[in-house]
Amino acid sequence: MTEEKVKGFRDFYPEDKRTSNYIFSIWKNIAELYGYEEIDLPILELTKLYNKSGDEIPTQIYRFKDKKDRDLALRPETTPSVARMVRSKPDLKKPLKWYSISQCYRYERLQKGRSREFYQYNLDYIGSKSMQVDAEVITTLIKILNSCGLTEKDFYIRISNRRLINDLFKDLKITNVKEMARLLDKRCKLTDKTLKQGLKDLELNEKQITSVLKLLKTDSLSKIEIKSEGLEELKELFSIFKKYKVEKYIKLDLSIMRGFDYYTSTVFEAFDKEGDFRAIAGGGRYDDLAGTPGIGYGFGDIVLETFLKEKNKLPSQANTTNLFIIPIDNLEKCIPIAEQLRQEGINVSVDLQEKGISKNLDYADKQSIPYVLIVGENELSKNKVKFKNMTSGEEKLISVDKVIKEIE
Amino acid sequence: MTEEKVKGFRDFYPEDKRTSNYIFSIWKNIAELYGYEEIDLPILELTKLYNKSGDEIPTQIYRFKDKKDRDLALRPETTPSVARMVRSKPDLKKPLKWYSISQCYRYERLQKGRSREFYQYNLDYIGSKSMQVDAEVITTLIKILNSCGLTEKDFYIRISNRRLINDLFKDLKITNVKEMARLLDKRCKLTDKTLKQGLKDLELNEKQITSVLKLLKTDSLSKIEIKSEGLEELKELFSIFKKYKVEKYIKLDLSIMRGFDYYTSTVFEAFDKEGDFRAIAGGGRYDDLAGTPGIGYGFGDIVLETFLKEKNKLPSQANTTNLFIIPIDNLEKCIPIAEQLRQEGINVSVDLQEKGISKNLDYADKQSIPYVLIVGENELSKNKVKFKNMTSGEEKLISVDKVIKEIE
Repeated sequence: MTEEKVKGFRDFYPEDKRTSNYIFSIWKNIAELYGYEEIDLPILELTKLYNKSGDEIPTQIYRFKDKKDRDLALRPETTPSVARMVRSKPDLKKPLKWYSISQCYRYERLQKGRSREFYQYNLDYIGSKSMQVDAEVITTLIKILNSCGLTEKDFYIRISNRRLINDLFKDLKITNVKEMARLLDKRCKLTDKTLKQGLKDLELNEKQITSVLKLLKTDSLSKIEIKSEGLEELKELFSIFKKYKVEKYIKLDLSIMRGFDYYTSTVFEAFDKEGDFRAIAGGGRYDDLAGTPGIGYGFGDIVLETFLKEKNKLPSQANTTNLFIIPIDNLEKCIPIAEQLRQEGINVSVDLQEKGISKNLDYADKQSIPYVLIVGENELSKNKVKFKNMTSGEEKLISVDKVIKEIE
Repeated sequence: MTEEKVKGFRDFYPEDKRTSNYIFSIWKNIAELYGYEEIDLPILELTKLYNKSGDEIPTQIYRFKDKKDRDLALRPETTPSVARMVRSKPDLKKPLKWYSISQCYRYERLQKGRSREFYQYNLDYIGSKSMQVDAEVITTLIKILNSCGLTEKDFYIRISNRRLINDLFKDLKITNVKEMARLLDKRCKLTDKTLKQGLKDLELNEKQITSVLKLLKTDSLSKIEIKSEGLEELKELFSIFKKYKVEKYIKLDLSIMRGFDYYTSTVFEAFDKEGDFRAIAGGGRYDDLAGTPGIGYGFGDIVLETFLKEKNKLPSQANTTNLFIIPIDNLEKCIPIAEQLRQEGINVSVDLQEKGISKNLDYADKQSIPYVLIVGENELSKNKVKFKNMTSGEEKLISVDKVIKEIE
């Protein structure tokens, strides 16, 4: 029956959704811990909204014409919608501290583990140019990964600054900055030889190429000797990270570009220390996109889930149902018991088909429901029910009033 | 700047999203209280999946061809995807108790308050024909409305049964049941005269029309005198509601049909007692759609939000941020304080731009942040900070360690 399904789009059965909800809850908790509020965005936007989304995304958009012949896009990324929302309400009190978890769609060639949709977590701070803001935003990214159980052994944050890069290129008399940025953005996928050839194709001379290759390896701000506003920004930013005690995660890396044309200053990526991934998450400052300065990043659920699995940091999630009630030919008496327990806040499922004890125990086990109540007439006449802990296997006779205590 | 936006698609700013999250949490809580687990579904399906979705929905589908010329649809409703997921994994242990909250899309003519997307809550019980199941499923719908603060004064549940309707029509020698169902489904929008004309157009004679109109007004099962499996089902169902103590919400109403062709037996709607709405939520039993019997219902966020607003039952929601910190020229000391409070689980926002006390108090007030901390050097030298309750206006000097107690 799988031919009925559109390829590249995931079905989330309860077990999949448990994992998904775990990831969402970590994103949500850290965002709210730092005072960001949730927003939600339209799935359809005018295609032209994505003009500045680099050179790859626009070719991957699911686009179609509606009945009025407008060119519409299924949201391929989040930032342009956020910026549009900011522009359309210029009177909102700044700063705006927003986050969202929204599905995005890209028509990519399907490879192993690739999907045509993913949930993107996006966090943005809008309304200030201060590097204090960049430090807080990047700290939330680090805290998310910490919250998943990952440490400086697993990941680091690579940081660069577009203004500094522009000044460095200017200093080297390189003019086609946009094309350079796009080439360097693909750097991880290129061998040194192809990179050099790419630079030659952009008409750089030998001296320029040597200088660019040297720059890409610069790992300390003190080694950069030009006068640049971007350099001052980076110096300030690096000093603030100490206040958050996250400086051990931070690494200068002038080779990162981020594909989007709308970034203007700070750009950053969370990167796997073992280098299996290009980037786990990434973002940057966009001071000209939203009518007011902003910075944000995006983080996809699939890349995070894959990363956590490889690091053995994806805990198995319990069923949201706490208790399964098995009636013994007395469903009519079990329903009021279930209703009473629900009033106490316990998530209760009842076997409505009266399938008997062994089938039901098997079902509760397969569903990862942690507790079972077996309701027999004999025990019930003494106001008791049999309570079973499915993890330990322990069983005891208790009164219905005591069930909540056993579960807490 | 609003011309940039696609009409009929909502932007959710933080205040809107708070309301949305309130509604989602009620749906989620009741579903989980009754042992249903969350699932998630693809936004794109093959258009032919919606062949049985009545006569209105297929005309409202956002459809387009992908690069391989397949006819794709933006999900207009949830049930067909649920059924597809069930069919594609026939070995899953039954019953499946699933719920989902997913956005659906319909290209409708835009009128006041109309939108082209809505979030649909869907709850399904799959794998049993027992009327016990129908009773539980319909009870969850009642409990959701109760949980919003609504009582039998505000709404009731109209119930019918497609099998019974078929048998009654057969008894009256009416053969074009599908067309009849579609006509009666629109009944609320029709005057008595137009309804009669519609029945005439379906080639019913005077006697048949009189009988149909009488049937539509039948309010008690005891008044129905034919032999019908559907009648027996309804009798059983009505008796089970007493176990859940929800019988006061239930009303027989043979005039309800529900537009979908895939319903086979029980059909039901939650209905506004003041009659301002056609239906607040609705569903039915679909025994032939998923390869195994099932029953479920859908519930839209917009209709619920509108209903709650009219009933004055939509409480205003607080910001998820608990505390706003105002530095007085000492941001570098405030960041570690904020980090300490976050470690204690408090959602903290800090003024990173050092805007001063009065602008910041105004901001915290506008953002509905309940507490503020003013960190002055004088007080800090005595290990104190000024804590302000924004609701009562009360201020006091406390040590940072005591902040969590004030907030709890």
